[in-house]
Amino acid sequence: MRGELFHPDRGDISLDKVLHALSDPIRRDVARTMHRDGPRVCGQLSYPIAKSTLSHHLKVLRESGLMTTEVRGTTRVISLRRDDLEARFPGLLDAVQVTAPAPEEASRAS
Amino acid sequence: MRGELFHPDRGDISLDKVLHALSDPIRRDVARTMHRDGPRVCGQLSYPIAKSTLSHHLKVLRESGLMTTEVRGTTRVISLRRDDLEARFPGLLDAVQVTAPAPEEASRAS
Repeated sequence: MRGELFHPDRGDISLDKVLHALSDPIRRDVARTMHRDGPRVCGQLSYPIAKSTLSHHLKVLRESGLMTTEVRGTTRVISLRRDDLEARFPGLLDAVQVTAPAPEEASRAS
Repeated sequence: MRGELFHPDRGDISLDKVLHALSDPIRRDVARTMHRDGPRVCGQLSYPIAKSTLSHHLKVLRESGLMTTEVRGTTRVISLRRDDLEARFPGLLDAVQVTAPAPEEASRAS
């Protein structure tokens, strides 16, 4: 049900692309939200940015291998690929404060 | 002896900039080399890229807070800021295979 959207296989997930995807605070926050609250409908996300900018962020997250996008009729459900990431790069999601957010990070949004 | 080169204070090291710096395989390799072999003279680094490109990579590493550049006469000595990074983002250098390189990463240079 992933439709024609590109998702890299686990073995093809590139550290370059994952780190680039995680280098943006909004993309990290989306990843953190999926970790904390589970799969999200895209419309549930709310950020003070243009819809096209958010769409771009979601594309970067999906194409890097950080999340899946599942098309369900007119909605899209996004999920963190936690198991795939943990298998490829153990400890990374913790270290970048996605699965173990640091209090200072949440308030600083560096 | 750091001269006028910009180095962020430990508390100002930004996760955004560190992850961006680490998203390039040559920059990760420079960081890994400094971790493995200690401080390096810039001229000791050898990569199949233009000197100006390498200089850019070293600037990104320095300005992100990943390393210091110390000017000693006509040479520049670069050092990994391991303690600063570990204090700010525990486990990150391990997770990105700088201080704990994965065999597959070394050969794939993903």
